[in-house]
Amino acid sequence: MPAASHTYAFLGPEGTFTEAALLQVPDALQAVRVPASNVNAALDLVRDGAADAAMVPIENSVEGGVTATLDAISGGPELRIVREVLVPITFVLVAGPGVRLEDVRRISTHGHAWAQCRLWMDKNIPEAEFVPGSSTAAAAVGLLDKDCHYDAAICAPLVAREHAGLSVLAENIGDNHGAVTRFILVSRPEVLPAPTGADKTTVAVPLPEDRPGALMEILDQFASRGVNLSRIESRPTGQYLGHYFFSIDADGHVGDARVADALAGLHRISPATRFLGSYPRADGQASQVAPHTSDEAFSAARSWVESILSGERPAGENGFAASPTA
Amino acid sequence: MPAASHTYAFLGPEGTFTEAALLQVPDALQAVRVPASNVNAALDLVRDGAADAAMVPIENSVEGGVTATLDAISGGPELRIVREVLVPITFVLVAGPGVRLEDVRRISTHGHAWAQCRLWMDKNIPEAEFVPGSSTAAAAVGLLDKDCHYDAAICAPLVAREHAGLSVLAENIGDNHGAVTRFILVSRPEVLPAPTGADKTTVAVPLPEDRPGALMEILDQFASRGVNLSRIESRPTGQYLGHYFFSIDADGHVGDARVADALAGLHRISPATRFLGSYPRADGQASQVAPHTSDEAFSAARSWVESILSGERPAGENGFAASPTA
Amino acid sequence: MPAASHTYAFLGPEGTFTEAALLQVPDALQAVRVPASNVNAALDLVRDGAADAAMVPIENSVEGGVTATLDAISGGPELRIVREVLVPITFVLVAGPGVRLEDVRRISTHGHAWAQCRLWMDKNIPEAEFVPGSSTAAAAVGLLDKDCHYDAAICAPLVAREHAGLSVLAENIGDNHGAVTRFILVSRPEVLPAPTGADKTTVAVPLPEDRPGALMEILDQFASRGVNLSRIESRPTGQYLGHYFFSIDADGHVGDARVADALAGLHRISPATRFLGSYPRADGQASQVAPHTSDEAFSAARSWVESILSGERPAGENGFAASPTA
Amino acid sequence: MPAASHTYAFLGPEGTFTEAALLQVPDALQAVRVPASNVNAALDLVRDGAADAAMVPIENSVEGGVTATLDAISGGPELRIVREVLVPITFVLVAGPGVRLEDVRRISTHGHAWAQCRLWMDKNIPEAEFVPGSSTAAAAVGLLDKDCHYDAAICAPLVAREHAGLSVLAENIGDNHGAVTRFILVSRPEVLPAPTGADKTTVAVPLPEDRPGALMEILDQFASRGVNLSRIESRPTGQYLGHYFFSIDADGHVGDARVADALAGLHRISPATRFLGSYPRADGQASQVAPHTSDEAFSAARSWVESILSGERPAGENGFAASPTA
Repeated sequence: MPAASHTYAFLGPEGTFTEAALLQVPDALQAVRVPASNVNAALDLVRDGAADAAMVPIENSVEGGVTATLDAISGGPELRIVREVLVPITFVLVAGPGVRLEDVRRISTHGHAWAQCRLWMDKNIPEAEFVPGSSTAAAAVGLLDKDCHYDAAICAPLVAREHAGLSVLAENIGDNHGAVTRFILVSRPEVLPAPTGADKTTVAVPLPEDRPGALMEILDQFASRGVNLSRIESRPTGQYLGHYFFSIDADGHVGDARVADALAGLHRISPATRFLGSYPRADGQASQVAPHTSDEAFSAARSWVESILSGERPAGENGFAASPTA
Repeated sequence: MPAASHTYAFLGPEGTFTEAALLQVPDALQAVRVPASNVNAALDLVRDGAADAAMVPIENSVEGGVTATLDAISGGPELRIVREVLVPITFVLVAGPGVRLEDVRRISTHGHAWAQCRLWMDKNIPEAEFVPGSSTAAAAVGLLDKDCHYDAAICAPLVAREHAGLSVLAENIGDNHGAVTRFILVSRPEVLPAPTGADKTTVAVPLPEDRPGALMEILDQFASRGVNLSRIESRPTGQYLGHYFFSIDADGHVGDARVADALAGLHRISPATRFLGSYPRADGQASQVAPHTSDEAFSAARSWVESILSGERPAGENGFAASPTA
Repeated sequence: MPAASHTYAFLGPEGTFTEAALLQVPDALQAVRVPASNVNAALDLVRDGAADAAMVPIENSVEGGVTATLDAISGGPELRIVREVLVPITFVLVAGPGVRLEDVRRISTHGHAWAQCRLWMDKNIPEAEFVPGSSTAAAAVGLLDKDCHYDAAICAPLVAREHAGLSVLAENIGDNHGAVTRFILVSRPEVLPAPTGADKTTVAVPLPEDRPGALMEILDQFASRGVNLSRIESRPTGQYLGHYFFSIDADGHVGDARVADALAGLHRISPATRFLGSYPRADGQASQVAPHTSDEAFSAARSWVESILSGERPAGENGFAASPTA
Repeated sequence: MPAASHTYAFLGPEGTFTEAALLQVPDALQAVRVPASNVNAALDLVRDGAADAAMVPIENSVEGGVTATLDAISGGPELRIVREVLVPITFVLVAGPGVRLEDVRRISTHGHAWAQCRLWMDKNIPEAEFVPGSSTAAAAVGLLDKDCHYDAAICAPLVAREHAGLSVLAENIGDNHGAVTRFILVSRPEVLPAPTGADKTTVAVPLPEDRPGALMEILDQFASRGVNLSRIESRPTGQYLGHYFFSIDADGHVGDARVADALAGLHRISPATRFLGSYPRADGQASQVAPHTSDEAFSAARSWVESILSGERPAGENGFAASPTA
């Protein structure tokens, strides 16, 4: 008998891009997978201990949820991002048994997915009629109802694979080839993945005061340590009008001295700053580190200051100024 | 016979928070209002001349569309934001005729709206079952179908007013009182609303290069002129991996010297910067302007530099340094 | 028999403002005082162990030497500034026995001192003739030579007190009342005065590269920690054309966390940065410290980062974002 | 009969490095040259119209005067720097007729010059005795007095050429080969030399307030326009304790758009900023100009903002965001 497997929550329903993201996690296929009706519900399963982790969207132009994710991980009991997953936005047109492409008139999907397949539609089914669905997967699964009132659905390839009754009429019908959605796997706060050299760190930083310059001070904590940002979004905290926090993805791991130093700087400026995780980048791209922001440079700088404080005389320094007596 | 009225597109369907936003526009009640199935469709009605303007979401945790709006106004033929509208997030529970609160079990709404009414649900209808809808309005209108398979819907107050067959079972059931959604009215690029002293300017700025500091340079254009930011979001351009643009709301109007100067700075750093409009703030809050960033300060500075270039000797200057001969 | 007293070198000759500065050091009156013919010679007496410390000018519009001091302490074996002294610039007109003010025609002094007494001269001795001297003190002492070819000298009050043969014809004849000269007492590098709350820290920072922005990076190390600067001067290093170092006075003591952190930042950017001392300010003015740059803020920030790295779950954090589940 | 020649003042006496600098000005050899006893006196000759221009030191470790120059051009009636001159620091040992090197014991010069020839002295005349002089030139000329009480003088090569009675005993005796002194030619404010592509601009900027960040704001005006600085010095204004101004040399000419824009920024932050001239660099090194700080970039940015303000629709913009409808 096998050991108890993991339990993963995800933003449902089954068959969406979010479940496709979850299936990229090595042991997810064997794990218990629990669809949740919204991001908060998925995260609460983790907070309550009912799930080990939850997969939720962080950058997704198809099915939404990003704002909910940003807000949910920044409020409530603390959580940690432990993994990032990219899923290509690939749409298929599916129908029930026996339906042919030329029969299709009424098509259901999520409104955003519909918007992203318009060029293909205009060319191939110009007379198509849009039937709004609550998600791409729900639209696809709805085809299996015997009293379904539409002919086909636009969805992720996954849902077609999961339901034998669905057949794919056309593949790769999205207008923007190469687009991706981005998801995060969220766990409880005691987890901190080891540095890999190609990591990302996510923080949520409330703006200390609504004045010109406060945002600059925050970003300067990264820039002055050579830490590149790959995402920034301001969000109202809901505490009072004009009060914001910034959700930020930065290159590197809190175990890197330059990132740790930047986080310390953030904490001083905005003590309610929330650390949301250091985790491997999905694209595996290693961070560029300038010599003066390397761990060695930080270590050497700290030693130098300590030698001053301890009154030890640093040996072998000759200075740099022109001096006849040097 | 009245003069031809305006035509307004909006992110549909009817009865959503977006239509509620549109109805705040003075002449919208008399105008032709055209629901569009997605943000791009709404904006294209403006671009094609079929509509005078379109109301679309820019900050909305209930029904999504924000990402689509940011991308759509930053790409394609140029458009202009001409107005900002705030709508309080107020949810009501509606049902068909004769249904009482204690009868309600199955409730439909958009997934995000469901998430935002959970505390009320847990307290008042703990055994409620969620039926996903494609929008809050679609869920409400669905109740009017005779074969509707759910008992009630969570929606904006507007949809209940628009449909006589719906009765309100409970008001103000959202968990986060005071939250608002934010919408923009978008028109063709020749429109530039006059400055009011309480304005906002929106730009989309592609990051010139993926290096530490480029984002700082962009934000410094605002900070160094004392221009406060109220929103910033990074978005992938889709041109290549790691290429971003920043969607930014700044205080003030391009007719203010400090904003014009900041925009000129942005254009130099990132010549593809797109100006998306200067328009009155929905909250009417006047910008704080420090003396050294006032129109007068900019004008005086320009005159001073011109007097140097023209070789005129500025009169009456005594300098500031200690000088025995002064 | 008394214990061996200290030996102090100073930029001579005797009777200058520099010796006046030295006499402000509590035990200098009882100490051995050695005039040196130039700043390097004074500092070499300290480096060689022949003197315990040397008083040299750091801001002095009367008798020069500032540039030499900046260069000499930045090159050669390391030294430490241990005290700062301010001396008011007060000039007196002195003459030998029996000379009256109305007899004075030819006046000797240092060229810079002459420039600073011109208004008084124009009013009181308009026909005065200037005889250049190598220092104010040398000019005064020269009056005691029997074959002296001038009638009076402009000098510091000290020299008149030191030589019985000189009588003061007029006091306080400088044009700029309230001006001061500034001096530093320099010792060997093992000395680090204790923090007093009203301290100053001096560093010499070679510019890492001649590019726009490098100077900003250096100054940002101070600004981003709320450390105010009271002096900055660029000096050529003499290593190659266009290579500079910056001599900087900053508020605070290296024992203050914000100063230590700024120094560590400088060391990373410019590893040849030279620490030249933390010492009490002559004016006794306490540093203004913002809450987010206090020792407590630095300590809290460090603890927070360490709790993340150790995997401890920070207790009691509720986050700040609007969250229905919070 | 020749046309009236120019009149040049200079910091005297004759034969110093300052006169050597003046002789580099093309028509100075034919001009009237007036030595002044101090920097203020030299500049006043220009202010009064008695001289067309004055040569004074701006970076000079030999004979001082730099501080006096910085203060004098920043206070009093406005002046303009019109030229920069570099003079190599080359010292010679001179003596009267018939004196041989081996006879020399007592040597006079300015104290700073003495400090800069010590290595040569230690090696060649270890028993030499220093006799302080008021300037290098005065020491040399003093040798021509029949009752001169020293044997030789250290001075600039110029003074030996100017006085037939002096013979050079040793050349190039300075310890720091390659060092230079820097001088400026100062005229009345109506003069503005034409841009050459290799120019320098000097300004004096009073610190608006004694707070962390004000200096950064000043320097940011240059950095944000890609304008490199080659010199910066803080100086007390003498107005009240802790009030400073910054004397700054920046690359480029006020006729360059990036420099004009930076000056306008300075004027806003610190309206008492004093423009002290744009003039050719002595080293002829052309400024590096990044594309985004070129005159073209400034002109394009201005046109773009004007097209927005005028309501003209910029043609041919397609935006950059991924958009299915683009």
